[in-house]
Amino acid sequence: MSEKSAVVLLSGGLDSATTLAMARAQGYRCYALSFDYGQRHRCELTAANAVAAQLGAAQHRTVSLDMNQFGGSALTDASIAVPDAGGEGIPVTYVPARNTVFLSLALAWAEVLAARDIFIGVNAVDYSGYPDCRPEFIQAFETLATLATKAGVEGHGMYIHAPLIDMSKAEIIQTGTALGVDYGLTVSCYNPDCEAGGYGLACGRCDSCRLRAEGFAAAGVADPTRYQ
Amino acid sequence: MSEKSAVVLLSGGLDSATTLAMARAQGYRCYALSFDYGQRHRCELTAANAVAAQLGAAQHRTVSLDMNQFGGSALTDASIAVPDAGGEGIPVTYVPARNTVFLSLALAWAEVLAARDIFIGVNAVDYSGYPDCRPEFIQAFETLATLATKAGVEGHGMYIHAPLIDMSKAEIIQTGTALGVDYGLTVSCYNPDCEAGGYGLACGRCDSCRLRAEGFAAAGVADPTRYQ
Repeated sequence: MSEKSAVVLLSGGLDSATTLAMARAQGYRCYALSFDYGQRHRCELTAANAVAAQLGAAQHRTVSLDMNQFGGSALTDASIAVPDAGGEGIPVTYVPARNTVFLSLALAWAEVLAARDIFIGVNAVDYSGYPDCRPEFIQAFETLATLATKAGVEGHGMYIHAPLIDMSKAEIIQTGTALGVDYGLTVSCYNPDCEAGGYGLACGRCDSCRLRAEGFAAAGVADPTRYQ
Repeated sequence: MSEKSAVVLLSGGLDSATTLAMARAQGYRCYALSFDYGQRHRCELTAANAVAAQLGAAQHRTVSLDMNQFGGSALTDASIAVPDAGGEGIPVTYVPARNTVFLSLALAWAEVLAARDIFIGVNAVDYSGYPDCRPEFIQAFETLATLATKAGVEGHGMYIHAPLIDMSKAEIIQTGTALGVDYGLTVSCYNPDCEAGGYGLACGRCDSCRLRAEGFAAAGVADPTRYQ
């Protein structure tokens, strides 16, 4: 096998698309993994399909997972409104233990593929108060992943790559643009109008839209986002 | 709230039923969590319902999760035969990263419930070579769980309880019997005849059947298992 294999978490957003492009640029054969977890912003999944194809993923799978039944987040619970930007502490858009769950399933696939590398597009700069976007969380998952699998028994490690973790949104956009990412295919909005077809229309008001728009402006890159 | 809440992973097997009984005996209000993950032994889920009711779980939920699409285990992949007892190393009945995935989803529910305790019935004595049944795995998950959630941000811990980890199968059976567990409701077999109705008929030949039968014999407790 000339290429190493990696599982790459792919939401269909700007960050994970850039992460996939970076993994490809590092020479990994990439297995892209998305989740249908009851998110309101389901046009993300349409976007994830398009991004996986554009960036040459070897495979793309979408796992259905009913996290909605636990409730507790504005992203999956229709009874909680998505707020406009601002606010302090952990926002209501936080999905409990989401990155832990997603990384766990990525680990399951990695083990079947005999891959030792998992990529995730978390970012500590713009992490909006989500506990599972911190570097110490990624480190703890890497330790766990090695112990949890055949890797640990066989004496080698599993590696969790979070290449965006210290980058600003502008740096992420500049990096992805240099690697040929088509950000017009990506969806970042927490509350898009998916009925508009394709990748939907962004609200332009939520935290995620605000960070994305500021990122394009700071990067000096034309913003391809379609707004409502 | 006079009772503390805990999420308890409940497979419908002997070990997890005993774990639920132990959590109840420690005064926890128990939220039992099962998974429909494409396992061959689906009468486990019938058993889990009956066990949750018998032992007074406050709620019981079953999350559907298509781990079968990753393949790689005799427990979920129909193209891999379940072996009879014996063999060395990690057996083909190992489901990649299963306990990591299950604990992650338990963590998500715990966070929504504001519970800080999760119980899992793993056992290091009879762990059959599964890497995710080792004490160091449980410790690593506890560290991760605290970092992954609001618990860590707010400065208190999440706790993963594995009360069976150092017990023999006979000790587990004696403990559960003393706590009133009806083991006739539980299914341990990797390859039961579920068509027989109820909790199915055990094969009597797989590793899990062998350990269970030896456990009842060593415990001096009548074995209520129905065999094919």
